[in-house]
Amino acid sequence: MRTQGVDCNQDVRAAIEHLLAAGGKRIRPTLVLLVGNMIGGNSEPLVTLGAAVELLHTATLVHDDLIDGALLRRGSETLNARWSSAATVLTGDFLFARAAKLASETDNTALMRLFANTLATIVNGELTQLFSARGVINRENYYQRIYAKTASLFEMSTQAAAMVTTDDADIIGTLRKFGYELGMAFQIVDDLLDFTGEQATVGKPLGSDLLQGLVTLPAIYFTEMNPNHPDVRSLAAGGWGDAERMERLVQSIRGSDAIQMTMHEAEQAVKRAIAHLLSFEDCIERTALEDLAKYVVDRRI
Amino acid sequence: MRTQGVDCNQDVRAAIEHLLAAGGKRIRPTLVLLVGNMIGGNSEPLVTLGAAVELLHTATLVHDDLIDGALLRRGSETLNARWSSAATVLTGDFLFARAAKLASETDNTALMRLFANTLATIVNGELTQLFSARGVINRENYYQRIYAKTASLFEMSTQAAAMVTTDDADIIGTLRKFGYELGMAFQIVDDLLDFTGEQATVGKPLGSDLLQGLVTLPAIYFTEMNPNHPDVRSLAAGGWGDAERMERLVQSIRGSDAIQMTMHEAEQAVKRAIAHLLSFEDCIERTALEDLAKYVVDRRI
Repeated sequence: MRTQGVDCNQDVRAAIEHLLAAGGKRIRPTLVLLVGNMIGGNSEPLVTLGAAVELLHTATLVHDDLIDGALLRRGSETLNARWSSAATVLTGDFLFARAAKLASETDNTALMRLFANTLATIVNGELTQLFSARGVINRENYYQRIYAKTASLFEMSTQAAAMVTTDDADIIGTLRKFGYELGMAFQIVDDLLDFTGEQATVGKPLGSDLLQGLVTLPAIYFTEMNPNHPDVRSLAAGGWGDAERMERLVQSIRGSDAIQMTMHEAEQAVKRAIAHLLSFEDCIERTALEDLAKYVVDRRI
Repeated sequence: MRTQGVDCNQDVRAAIEHLLAAGGKRIRPTLVLLVGNMIGGNSEPLVTLGAAVELLHTATLVHDDLIDGALLRRGSETLNARWSSAATVLTGDFLFARAAKLASETDNTALMRLFANTLATIVNGELTQLFSARGVINRENYYQRIYAKTASLFEMSTQAAAMVTTDDADIIGTLRKFGYELGMAFQIVDDLLDFTGEQATVGKPLGSDLLQGLVTLPAIYFTEMNPNHPDVRSLAAGGWGDAERMERLVQSIRGSDAIQMTMHEAEQAVKRAIAHLLSFEDCIERTALEDLAKYVVDRRI
C-alpha cells in the first residue's frame, strides 16, 4: 500500500503515509488473505488484491469524511481537517486510481468488473442516502443501505479472493455469501454500538445516527414494538433534529429489547456466515475466519 | 454513456443526463473510433472504450470544476453550481466507477492497467499544480503539466483503441505517439486561446491562466525573449495576483512574436502526429484523423 504513493507529489505522499499510519482494523485485507489461503491460493495475487481492497476502502473514507465534515477518523485527524477540500478530493481520486491499478495487476477482468461495480454500489448508496428524506423508518431501505455501505465490499473481498484462486463457481459463490453475511453483521453491530458503545471506544457521540436522521436497526425494532411512541412518531416530521428528544429516544432504545433483538440478528448472520465455511476442510485459516466472524459480534463494549 | 446511469438514484441520473446533454466536442471517443476503425477493429469494444474514455474525462471535469469553483462548462451550469459539493464529489466518483466498469468490459487487463495509470497521472498532475508555487516560469514543468492534464488521456485513447484491436506492439506504439503529439498540440492551442481567443468563444475571461498564476507557453516564450520585462519579473513575486498588471501583460504577449512561436510549436506537434499515420494504409479514417489533427490547430479564433 505504501509503495503506491512513491512516485507522486511529496505532499500527497505525506498524506498517504498519514492515512496509512492511522491504521484501522484492516479487516478487509485480512479476509482476502485468510479466504484465499484457505483454498490454497498464491500469496502474491492475494496480497495485491488485499492492498487494492484496503486502498479502495480508504479512498471512499477520504471522500466520506470530507462530505461529512468529520475531523477525526481512527483517532487521527482526517485529511479534510488538515487540508483544503481540493486536495482532499484529489487525494481520494488518486487512491481510487491506485486501487484500480493494483486490482488490474491480478490480471483478471471479471475481478476488475466486480471491483468497478462494487465502487458504483458504494457510491450510489451514499448518493441515495444524500438525496433521501431523513427520519424514514424502513427495514428494506435499511438493509439496502448497509449492503451498499459495508456488506458489498466485504462480499467483494471474499469473492475476489476466491476468483484469483479458483474457477470453481460453487466455491466462489459460497465464499461470496460468507463475505456478504459477515459484512451485514459487521454493519448491524456498528449501528448497535452507536446506541450501546462507550463513547470513548466508538469515537463519536452516542446516538449520532439518529441525530443525522439515520434510522438504524435498533430504532427500527423499537419502532416496530412501540409504533405510537411520541419520540418515534416525531422522526419522520423532523424530530431527529431535536437533540434533547433524540437523547431521550436513545435512552428508551437502550432500555428496550430492541438491543437484544438487534444483536440476535447480527449473531444469526454470523452463524450463516460460519455455516458457509463448513464445506471447506478444517484448517488454520478456516478457524481464523470463524474467530474473525465471532469477533464481529463480540466487539460490543 | 447514458445507460450507465440507468440503475442509479434518480437525482444522479438527472445529473448525468445534464452532464451528457451539455455535449462537448467528444474528441477523445472520436479518436478511439477513428483509430480503431483505421486498423480494422470491431465496433463493439471500440464503442465501449470510447464511452469509458469520455466518462473518465467527464468525471475528472466534475471534480475539477468543483475544486475551481467554476460555474459554467460548455455553456451549461456545472454540477457544483446547482448542487452541494457532497453530491458533486460523489457523482464524480460514480462516473469513475462507471468508466472503470466499461473499461473492464473490453476484457483486456493491460488496458485496465493503462486506464488506472492514466487516471493516476491526471490526478497527480492536478495535485502537483495545487501544491506548486504560482507564477513559476519553467518550460519543463509546463510540458509535464500539459501532459498530465491533456496529452495523457489523448495518448491513452489512441493506444487503447489499438490495444483492443491488435497485439502488434509497433502499431500500438505508433498510435500511442500519434495521440501524445495530438494531445500536446491540443493543450498548447487551448493555452494560446487564453491569450488570443474571443472571450465569447473561449467561454472564460482572457488571461485567466495568468490570473491564476499559471504560466503557459505564450508567456514562457515572451519571457524568454524579454527576461527583464517588469511584468514578467513580477510573476514569481506574486504579480499574477495583480489583475491590472496581468491585463497589461496579456496585451504585451498578444502583440509579441510569442503568439506565432506558440502556434508554430503546436503545428510542429500536429505534423509529427500526422507523420505517425503515414505507415497506415490510406483510408477514410486516416483522412479523418488528419483532418482532426489539423482542426486542433485551426480552431484559433
